[in-house]
Amino acid sequence: MPYIEAKVLKGFRDFLPKQEMARRDLIARIEAVFRLYGLVPIDTPALEYAAILLGKSGGETEKQMYRFTDNGGRDVALRFDLTVPFARFLAEHSADIILPFKRYHIAKVWRGENTQRGRYREFTQCDFDIVGADNPAADFEILLILRDSVQATGAGAVTIKINHRGLFNHFLDHTGIDRTKTADILRIIDKASKIDRDSLRTQLEATVGKKHSDSLLSFIELKGPFADILPALIDCSGGLSPEASWLDQLYQYMRDTGTEDCFTLDPSITRGLDYYTGTVFETFLVAAPELGSICSGGRYDNLVALYSKESLSGVGASIGLDRLMVALEEKQSSYAMCALVCERAEDWGKAHATAQQLRNAGISCDVFLDIKKLTKQYVRAEKKAIPFVLLYRESLTLRDIQNRRNYEHITVEEIITTLKGV
Amino acid sequence: MPYIEAKVLKGFRDFLPKQEMARRDLIARIEAVFRLYGLVPIDTPALEYAAILLGKSGGETEKQMYRFTDNGGRDVALRFDLTVPFARFLAEHSADIILPFKRYHIAKVWRGENTQRGRYREFTQCDFDIVGADNPAADFEILLILRDSVQATGAGAVTIKINHRGLFNHFLDHTGIDRTKTADILRIIDKASKIDRDSLRTQLEATVGKKHSDSLLSFIELKGPFADILPALIDCSGGLSPEASWLDQLYQYMRDTGTEDCFTLDPSITRGLDYYTGTVFETFLVAAPELGSICSGGRYDNLVALYSKESLSGVGASIGLDRLMVALEEKQSSYAMCALVCERAEDWGKAHATAQQLRNAGISCDVFLDIKKLTKQYVRAEKKAIPFVLLYRESLTLRDIQNRRNYEHITVEEIITTLKGV
Repeated sequence: MPYIEAKVLKGFRDFLPKQEMARRDLIARIEAVFRLYGLVPIDTPALEYAAILLGKSGGETEKQMYRFTDNGGRDVALRFDLTVPFARFLAEHSADIILPFKRYHIAKVWRGENTQRGRYREFTQCDFDIVGADNPAADFEILLILRDSVQATGAGAVTIKINHRGLFNHFLDHTGIDRTKTADILRIIDKASKIDRDSLRTQLEATVGKKHSDSLLSFIELKGPFADILPALIDCSGGLSPEASWLDQLYQYMRDTGTEDCFTLDPSITRGLDYYTGTVFETFLVAAPELGSICSGGRYDNLVALYSKESLSGVGASIGLDRLMVALEEKQSSYAMCALVCERAEDWGKAHATAQQLRNAGISCDVFLDIKKLTKQYVRAEKKAIPFVLLYRESLTLRDIQNRRNYEHITVEEIITTLKGV
Repeated sequence: MPYIEAKVLKGFRDFLPKQEMARRDLIARIEAVFRLYGLVPIDTPALEYAAILLGKSGGETEKQMYRFTDNGGRDVALRFDLTVPFARFLAEHSADIILPFKRYHIAKVWRGENTQRGRYREFTQCDFDIVGADNPAADFEILLILRDSVQATGAGAVTIKINHRGLFNHFLDHTGIDRTKTADILRIIDKASKIDRDSLRTQLEATVGKKHSDSLLSFIELKGPFADILPALIDCSGGLSPEASWLDQLYQYMRDTGTEDCFTLDPSITRGLDYYTGTVFETFLVAAPELGSICSGGRYDNLVALYSKESLSGVGASIGLDRLMVALEEKQSSYAMCALVCERAEDWGKAHATAQQLRNAGISCDVFLDIKKLTKQYVRAEKKAIPFVLLYRESLTLRDIQNRRNYEHITVEEIITTLKGV
């Protein structure tokens, strides 16, 4: 019989133990921060009615969707993000939700993207939002959660670049730029960090002419600490406005919490054609800005408009777990502190009993289920990144793998004390 | 514009925060036990080539699969279990795996089953296996992990019913029952717990005749502690055999670890037509046997036969998380220990700073992002199951929601001490 070739689909991937341990560890650290803020988790189906997922979105989304007819003749698709299912969820469960609703959702999404660009067709999104609190304090809380959760992963300090979509619109009006060009302008500016200044200028000039292109360039190049930039931004956008006050209030909160050092104002942050309507932000690692934004988000108006006459606005962000994984050092890790090795099969029962004593004390123990030469067992422990080997003989011997040192005639109590102290 | 109806597909479900918190808590408890045994996690794609998932399986699987042609013209399907992807994974990554390989995999699977029977079309499986250790010590370790992990969920004591497929075959040969009837017999016996004794007898008689039916009935009714039943089973199956010794060895390990009380021998456990070839087992909650088996599994021969000329046998089990959820008491829970309430919007910055102090001490704190009457905030805290409310005023007041008691003029340090002591 010919074998079936064992391979995953293009753009998909397996997670081997080393990678999956690192991924789960990363998620656990982020989740611990979410919980400190009282965020609660939800989950939604991977598969939904295609009509719900498509919503009013255009051709690009549709082309990327894994869409098919199920055995019951329904037009269904795999979710391509967690935002649309969240909107559907809010509309469906509005009676069971306590507002403001602070939730997170960590789950896989699927996009049949062109994999040439090194993108995956299956990846995990990590979204968190506050819905139903229309004030800068909610925006600020999202920013704090973002800062704390990324830092908790061990990726180091972050810079969060902030802008306000409304203030950008005020600038366009104040400068006299044709608002029908907004979408084109946003599309160009969103690519600003990826192209050189001359190409940016050329593209802007082609869209709004030389004079307005100059104004746009000086506007989006106003970057820096809130204290320095906010007054200039307000000036360029025609003076005080509710949007300017919103940013000013955010700045006040930064000072109240002594967190202003990690925030900058940056009018070039627009989040392209996304559905954001207020504050928008992107997050960069101080140690690895070249990775691009590892967490982006903003404030949006009515999320549930497609599904209900209710109106629910919110603010949220999405952490790019794959980019964060790249930033974190690859290290071999193990869930086992100790390997237990027998030299005779008849000892396994008693060895299992000893292993249970260690586990009851919280020490993870991997019983090696074969009889082999000790040197081979040591090599295997090292490969599995298990730091200690316990030899089950007439008396117990604990081997410190890294220091190649043996502790002979050791008791279970002594092992527990030794391993707990590591 | 008409609204799109917000609803999930039939057989699918959302998890609201209360349910999702309970689900994640359940999984975390099980995972903590897996790690104490040194099991490592893996993950595989939700979508695979249909040919790989189908393998040699029959029409039933194919009918239940969510199978479609992707945009690249590939014949793909959503996984319907975690066993087939694991087999493919082992064949694909054999060079990167250290044997014996002890892994767990907790992930969603999809089956377009008839939902009339109260089954879901999307559910989470929780599998753990040891591959590449062909001895009773590996079987025993799986049984220990199973016992410890189910008990760690708070579902109470378990009874694990064990049988050996090979011993069952010896019994058939020894009794002179036609082995071509094996599949039919297994199918009937697998339903034994769901039908009355007379129907069982009638069905068996129709298959193997009266005399053999009587023998089969007495055989599968030999149930009880290993010490009582094992000798009788050996006798009925034609005397000592490698399979009998295997069970005897398991029994020795039970005595060595003092765990024999939670295991029984039960020849009616056959796992139907599953791919098991050796030890098989099912697990019942002592407090809720009516839920049926909440964790089943067994030993199988060559798992990778379809994909590779290598041979890898193993032993594994799958925990039914949905059934376990039913067994566990539904309780309202919250990730926040404390809600922080302001009476003036201008206090939010400083309130966020106070919340950060609490979080730095490990106390989760949900800042309520609106200004409302205190009584309304207390009601909301109660609804969200948050036990304490901290009032941010000139001085801090801590409210114990359940005992309706206030601690006035409290310092952050005192709050930390109080809440850590709860």
